[in-house]
Amino acid sequence: MKNPVRVTITGAAGQIGYQLAFRIASGQMFGQNQPIILQLLEITPALPALNGVVMELEDCAFSTLNDVIATDDANTAFKDSEYAILVGAMPRGPGMERNDLLQANAKIFTHQGKAINDNANKEIRVLVVGNPANTNALIASSNAPNIDPQNFTAMTRLDHNRAIAHLSKKLNVSSQNIKKMIIWGNHSATQYPDVDHVTVDDTSIKDQISDDWLKSDFIPAIQQRGAEIIKARGASSAASAASAAIDHMHDWVLGSAENNWVSMGVFSDGSYGIKPGIIYSFPVRCSQGSYEIIQDLSLTEFSQERMRVTEKELREERTAIEELL
Amino acid sequence: MKNPVRVTITGAAGQIGYQLAFRIASGQMFGQNQPIILQLLEITPALPALNGVVMELEDCAFSTLNDVIATDDANTAFKDSEYAILVGAMPRGPGMERNDLLQANAKIFTHQGKAINDNANKEIRVLVVGNPANTNALIASSNAPNIDPQNFTAMTRLDHNRAIAHLSKKLNVSSQNIKKMIIWGNHSATQYPDVDHVTVDDTSIKDQISDDWLKSDFIPAIQQRGAEIIKARGASSAASAASAAIDHMHDWVLGSAENNWVSMGVFSDGSYGIKPGIIYSFPVRCSQGSYEIIQDLSLTEFSQERMRVTEKELREERTAIEELL
Repeated sequence: MKNPVRVTITGAAGQIGYQLAFRIASGQMFGQNQPIILQLLEITPALPALNGVVMELEDCAFSTLNDVIATDDANTAFKDSEYAILVGAMPRGPGMERNDLLQANAKIFTHQGKAINDNANKEIRVLVVGNPANTNALIASSNAPNIDPQNFTAMTRLDHNRAIAHLSKKLNVSSQNIKKMIIWGNHSATQYPDVDHVTVDDTSIKDQISDDWLKSDFIPAIQQRGAEIIKARGASSAASAASAAIDHMHDWVLGSAENNWVSMGVFSDGSYGIKPGIIYSFPVRCSQGSYEIIQDLSLTEFSQERMRVTEKELREERTAIEELL
Repeated sequence: MKNPVRVTITGAAGQIGYQLAFRIASGQMFGQNQPIILQLLEITPALPALNGVVMELEDCAFSTLNDVIATDDANTAFKDSEYAILVGAMPRGPGMERNDLLQANAKIFTHQGKAINDNANKEIRVLVVGNPANTNALIASSNAPNIDPQNFTAMTRLDHNRAIAHLSKKLNVSSQNIKKMIIWGNHSATQYPDVDHVTVDDTSIKDQISDDWLKSDFIPAIQQRGAEIIKARGASSAASAASAAIDHMHDWVLGSAENNWVSMGVFSDGSYGIKPGIIYSFPVRCSQGSYEIIQDLSLTEFSQERMRVTEKELREERTAIEELL
């Protein structure tokens, strides 16, 4: 057994947190030889429910779970933390404008960024799941000047997995055989799911799908999948979001598969003309806790246009909260 | 990769089902080399929610999930099924007497027992989680005469795990080092959590705990743990129940650990004087899909008395639904 690692989950008593905590504690994120100390953060009114989660975690008697800390204090939750999954965020309430939502979440992620800066392990790797995820990650990073900005990421893996699942049905092949999917941009309805580089058994799928299907079926289906699930379940995606978060952290830390890549929201370095200063989803290759943006992919005019649309949205989000950066 | 196995989950859109489906689909029950076909059963009004679960399962793009079938028809859900986890049951409503609850569930499990008999693989292994679990398993088995009664079991693994977790805190040792816990009897408040044979590092723990602590703290704590969690969460145990169900099936099929045993509700064969005709939790050793009750354990007078109390409750439950057997 290795030394235990400290993993922080915020919003840990919520629906996503309730899925995430048990899958991480059972060893699914970092493997059966990696003991975990869970550090769970909730807002004060949710502490009784969080205590119930802690009781259930104990009752699982997981061999990979060394300890659980439950708190409403961000400084405690991020103390010495090496991995953090920031799930808790303010949901959009009735009558709330997009800008109100950005501002409300900006406060949360400013506070958590500072707590990370002041308390966490300097090598901490952060995944933001709570929406607006890309801009929340930008704010958290800006408030944590002592942590490498590359260590702040936003989740587009759920969109990436959804796109693969959708292609798997369309092409009638196992999702494991579908490689080199890309989600570009924002984890929002402007995201651009790009299949131009997708292969099945090292062969492009372009002959098997039409432009019309892509534009009128596939792209809107991926962009709107979250809303479809809310309609069916009466609640937003929780288990699949938790699963994507595990995939994101697992691949970041243990490496992405050979001859493939994954999508992650990361600080733009100017690749593909996306100006720095925003967290944008790119195709990345991961190895031993670091990642690099895949370079030199050819982009059609259609792709470039879609990539600009989602970049523009992220710029607007940035402008709305710029005084906090 | 092996050939896929068919796993049925009833009540699959409920809280336990929502945890169970994803952990099984991700390979945690039978391992990463065992592809799964999930067959999910729900009552008709829950089909939209179940459809949401199916969408999310697809969106996880699990390498171990080959297919998902969602239905409100028990015959479809159990068709060729090799493993079934029966979670769906009627919860106790306001003003409902214990006997009403037994009768309401008896109908459900009579119907499902017949559907298993008529449709499932003849080697199907069944775990009943829905309460009253022991007696529900008895009814299901009685209505499936073509399936070996030994293949019907009830879950006391959650109680077993809870007891280990509680001892782990008391003795300040990892739960992995606590071996030979026993839950005797019914998965109800009469269950008897017996620590007389428990070892840590092959040494009895009897010197470290007092009779008084056992009787006034430990035993009631395990018996009432479910109620404690409801109080904290405002909802009954879901993630820990799902986790225990995975442990139960995993160990049954792949074997329990060396120099240890697990607790499972199984048909009494008369061991320890428990008369046949009821499903009673015993310590069992599992290997390659079969189990044997651990024999020749010495029992104190106190233990024998507690074992009779929970046996008596199971006899009464049997009497209440006897016309259905």
